[in-house]
Amino acid sequence: MSSSSPRTPHAFTAGMWTFGRIIDRYATDGYGPPVPTLKTIDLAAASGELAGLDLNYPFDEGVTVEEVGKALAGHGLAAVNITPVIYDRGFRSGSFTSTDPAVRKRAVDLAHESVDVARRLNARYVKFWPGQDGYDYPFQVDYATLRRHAVEGIRDVARNFPDVTFAIEYKLKEPRNRLFWSTAAASLLAIEQMGVDNVGLVVDFGHSLFAKENPAEALTLAHSMGRLVDIELDDNYREWDDDLTAGALHLVETLEFLHVVREIGWEHPLKLDLFPYRENAGEAVRESVATLRALDDKAARLPLEELRAAQAVHDAMAVQRIVRAALLG
Amino acid sequence: MSSSSPRTPHAFTAGMWTFGRIIDRYATDGYGPPVPTLKTIDLAAASGELAGLDLNYPFDEGVTVEEVGKALAGHGLAAVNITPVIYDRGFRSGSFTSTDPAVRKRAVDLAHESVDVARRLNARYVKFWPGQDGYDYPFQVDYATLRRHAVEGIRDVARNFPDVTFAIEYKLKEPRNRLFWSTAAASLLAIEQMGVDNVGLVVDFGHSLFAKENPAEALTLAHSMGRLVDIELDDNYREWDDDLTAGALHLVETLEFLHVVREIGWEHPLKLDLFPYRENAGEAVRESVATLRALDDKAARLPLEELRAAQAVHDAMAVQRIVRAALLG
Amino acid sequence: MSSSSPRTPHAFTAGMWTFGRIIDRYATDGYGPPVPTLKTIDLAAASGELAGLDLNYPFDEGVTVEEVGKALAGHGLAAVNITPVIYDRGFRSGSFTSTDPAVRKRAVDLAHESVDVARRLNARYVKFWPGQDGYDYPFQVDYATLRRHAVEGIRDVARNFPDVTFAIEYKLKEPRNRLFWSTAAASLLAIEQMGVDNVGLVVDFGHSLFAKENPAEALTLAHSMGRLVDIELDDNYREWDDDLTAGALHLVETLEFLHVVREIGWEHPLKLDLFPYRENAGEAVRESVATLRALDDKAARLPLEELRAAQAVHDAMAVQRIVRAALLG
Amino acid sequence: MSSSSPRTPHAFTAGMWTFGRIIDRYATDGYGPPVPTLKTIDLAAASGELAGLDLNYPFDEGVTVEEVGKALAGHGLAAVNITPVIYDRGFRSGSFTSTDPAVRKRAVDLAHESVDVARRLNARYVKFWPGQDGYDYPFQVDYATLRRHAVEGIRDVARNFPDVTFAIEYKLKEPRNRLFWSTAAASLLAIEQMGVDNVGLVVDFGHSLFAKENPAEALTLAHSMGRLVDIELDDNYREWDDDLTAGALHLVETLEFLHVVREIGWEHPLKLDLFPYRENAGEAVRESVATLRALDDKAARLPLEELRAAQAVHDAMAVQRIVRAALLG
Repeated sequence: MSSSSPRTPHAFTAGMWTFGRIIDRYATDGYGPPVPTLKTIDLAAASGELAGLDLNYPFDEGVTVEEVGKALAGHGLAAVNITPVIYDRGFRSGSFTSTDPAVRKRAVDLAHESVDVARRLNARYVKFWPGQDGYDYPFQVDYATLRRHAVEGIRDVARNFPDVTFAIEYKLKEPRNRLFWSTAAASLLAIEQMGVDNVGLVVDFGHSLFAKENPAEALTLAHSMGRLVDIELDDNYREWDDDLTAGALHLVETLEFLHVVREIGWEHPLKLDLFPYRENAGEAVRESVATLRALDDKAARLPLEELRAAQAVHDAMAVQRIVRAALLG
Repeated sequence: MSSSSPRTPHAFTAGMWTFGRIIDRYATDGYGPPVPTLKTIDLAAASGELAGLDLNYPFDEGVTVEEVGKALAGHGLAAVNITPVIYDRGFRSGSFTSTDPAVRKRAVDLAHESVDVARRLNARYVKFWPGQDGYDYPFQVDYATLRRHAVEGIRDVARNFPDVTFAIEYKLKEPRNRLFWSTAAASLLAIEQMGVDNVGLVVDFGHSLFAKENPAEALTLAHSMGRLVDIELDDNYREWDDDLTAGALHLVETLEFLHVVREIGWEHPLKLDLFPYRENAGEAVRESVATLRALDDKAARLPLEELRAAQAVHDAMAVQRIVRAALLG
Repeated sequence: MSSSSPRTPHAFTAGMWTFGRIIDRYATDGYGPPVPTLKTIDLAAASGELAGLDLNYPFDEGVTVEEVGKALAGHGLAAVNITPVIYDRGFRSGSFTSTDPAVRKRAVDLAHESVDVARRLNARYVKFWPGQDGYDYPFQVDYATLRRHAVEGIRDVARNFPDVTFAIEYKLKEPRNRLFWSTAAASLLAIEQMGVDNVGLVVDFGHSLFAKENPAEALTLAHSMGRLVDIELDDNYREWDDDLTAGALHLVETLEFLHVVREIGWEHPLKLDLFPYRENAGEAVRESVATLRALDDKAARLPLEELRAAQAVHDAMAVQRIVRAALLG
Repeated sequence: MSSSSPRTPHAFTAGMWTFGRIIDRYATDGYGPPVPTLKTIDLAAASGELAGLDLNYPFDEGVTVEEVGKALAGHGLAAVNITPVIYDRGFRSGSFTSTDPAVRKRAVDLAHESVDVARRLNARYVKFWPGQDGYDYPFQVDYATLRRHAVEGIRDVARNFPDVTFAIEYKLKEPRNRLFWSTAAASLLAIEQMGVDNVGLVVDFGHSLFAKENPAEALTLAHSMGRLVDIELDDNYREWDDDLTAGALHLVETLEFLHVVREIGWEHPLKLDLFPYRENAGEAVRESVATLRALDDKAARLPLEELRAAQAVHDAMAVQRIVRAALLG
């Protein structure tokens, strides 16, 4: 019986925000003290499990790209991607979809800067998470105009840098009640309409659950269209972006996700997207990595012929048996 | 100040199932006695508000297309569309996505028959609601194969009848836990991949709410892509396809939906998709129509310049004032 | 280091509906052919894993209590409880909360008959699942009256049979859009208001998930109030009563539930509540039992001192490590 | 035909947080600049619609109770209640349910101080919103211990001040993934278990929707048990505490809520709980008040005999007609 061929185990990366100060609307004094940019890099390294970071840009005032590059290099960490902060106060009513041309220009300028930073730090791509691009109330926007701004804004940036890879991370809601880049399919459809080759998707397991998708199916779709740029892992209760440790709740669906990650031949590290409000960030990373390694090990030993035979007839009970044997031994 | 130009008021149509016997998994003896095909047409007509029907096919055994056509004509009702029943026991594990070629062939055959019936009854289109096309458990299907079957099955039918219009009605779940044709964007993306011109979308207000979409935005998207074939109305609690009377719960979003219906210049009747389990079907239709007429009247008098000015700056409070003035006087 | 003391492994029971014909509003011709009462008992026994059944009453026309008793005895199956069918067409607008005194009387009469049947079959309790007791639309009912009927109806039955145990199974919705007996806490509060000792709660894992509860917490609460009568297992996507096989999706929460089952010293079998629409019922039972046994074995070996120490300081990462070690080795 | 008797129109109050600086985990620099305590009072007064405020305590450093009292008096605003801030960093892992006795003591001390402030400002009650009392992961807490701390902590405070009214505001989740005080029924059950007379409930319309309750039913229940202390209004998409303006989405359910407010003879002002992230707070208040006034006016004119007659037979279509006539004319 065949099974997945042996492979190098996954490496892991994480968002630098995991190590920073987390705030929410109630603990407005933060769940901990402020953490300077360079300190988040030290903390990420100290977790002992990471190969690289997703870096929010701009950095703290006064911190240079060189300093960040040096801090990363000193710890042997890669810059996975640059994520321009197009979702703070300056963009509270939208970035690329703001109704204010000056704000849209600022989003574009920050994107351009991010490309420059990405090049200097040798990052693989620039990620857009347009969390303020959407609306809150019915009737608030003209949907065609919103769509045009959302699509054209990113398209124009992408056209300016045809050799740079861009990715969009979708989420159903938060902080806006309705986000434009909401689901995998909605985002892929809009990306297709852009007509550019260098924009793709980040599939975040938790965002996919929250969007009422099956993450493994969303991943398959993005890959099949040649638009999969990165993969993020975490967990939640299926109705909000709780950003719990990976595998905290949904082991079966995480296993299936990791199985598809193998099937598509994913070559890059897996990224963690965690918000350990009350936990030690390093512990949250280590716990997630340990869970994902254990699950991936089980994914590697799935009896693929048997699984494919069961899937070929949609035999739910047969796949359950296979999954149970893999997970619970 | 401009407002929508005067127009002929909407006509209304309904699904014939609204007048039939409703069953569920608990009241397996039905919420009422069986209702023969021709009787549902009489009951639909007796509601006094309908211009046509969405007709499930096959009809009761022994009932001919001619008899149905005569019953409709006798009441002055149009056949809006034919909906092949590809979701009963024979298709319990899928229609176009069944793993059994014989079942897939039956789905195709039934689709072909439906085209014939549609032509004979002068229906505007053939509707697919592939409610058994999906899966229930993680790992149960190979997503790429499921997608291929879903897309190619309908594409092949559509290619056989290039002069016939087909439409797909999407829903997030039920009866399968996960349906392939799940959201507006997922369906439009798959329809685009079909590469045919004669397949479009039915946007059902309730299915859209249930899919965590804003229905007005989904409608705008389908229209903008030239894929909007029909519009259905109903209401629910945003997390299941409750099929309550239109406007029962979500007046603001129904008003916005009707506003977009006007903006896109929709020329066809509006269809009701109701399941009045414990209510008189005629009453449920009349109540829905009365609510929709009242709302559409308010939609017609929205101060469009003012609304557009508010939308041009995403002014939530200004649009709230406009909506409140329109709805609550 | 201590761990749970060795115990006899759990026995399992199931609802007889799992082996009957399943119908829904789309496959109105059923997901299979009709299954007579006595045949469901044979099929249950043939699953090879069950010690008893939850029996819907009335049985098929013409089937006597003696015949059922004999069929059960012939297979060595116990009658766990009798569940009067107060949710079919005759009760479509409510059972104990119907506005029609004649319907309320029928509910009471059927409850009385069920007590008689329970006694004759030596069942442990009579279960009410008042799935039609609730409402669908805002303003439809006067809430105080609905509550009074719901509470008094069951209280009066319970007072008539002080030596009989009754239990209520709660669910958030379906078939009514809003059920009166909706959550564990809402039901326990209403049961307390009844002022009788012989009415308790059935905690169904899936209903609890669907009600946005944590099932382990709901179980703890019902037990702490001395109101826990039975426990049912299944799984779902947290937003509908999908009745999937136990452990299909939520292994961690099922493990925690089984841990609490041990902690409270539960002595009765665990019941399965499955609706295998498209699957073989026996297979669904066997798969559920195998998963629950595997999980219970892991629950039995949880390092309790370590776990309690972690819980004593709410240490999420420490409990994650314990759970991971238990589940994934 | 009778209808509600004429009454003085409702007065309105609001949370002072509505006028403060709103922050979330993305716009960590806030949706606007910091707003000092006394300035929020000025802004509340400037809205032109408020009779009083829900005051978070402690105030800004250096601001005295006298200064707050004077600011309120200067604007003719009442102190409705004091809400001790038991949900910021110092209580990030719980207030009354913290595992750290020193933190629990701080919660108690802050509650005592709040009683003192409430007395000095002549506030009607002290409100607990224990938003950090709960947990995030399965297995994280021992549920019985959590419950004991939650119930006993507030009970002890209440016993110390038998002449003071206390109220608990429940919410399903946020900032913890699972809050102890989650639903109306769960909270009422726990309050009953406290065995004190001076602790009741705040029913927040939005929290109730979010908890999958029907707010009008929750209000009826709290009132019927003599535990209703205050009422808050807002709106959301039924799955998160979005804190939109009142009536923004759910007009029918808000109308029903206001109808029940009338039926129970509520004598106090109605409070708004809004988070106008991107909107002017005064505008959000005015818009909410205008909508609630318009709806309450319609509630006042509901044909009560007709409504009661329809409710007496659970006639969904009849109540729909009544609601439609009331709302849409």
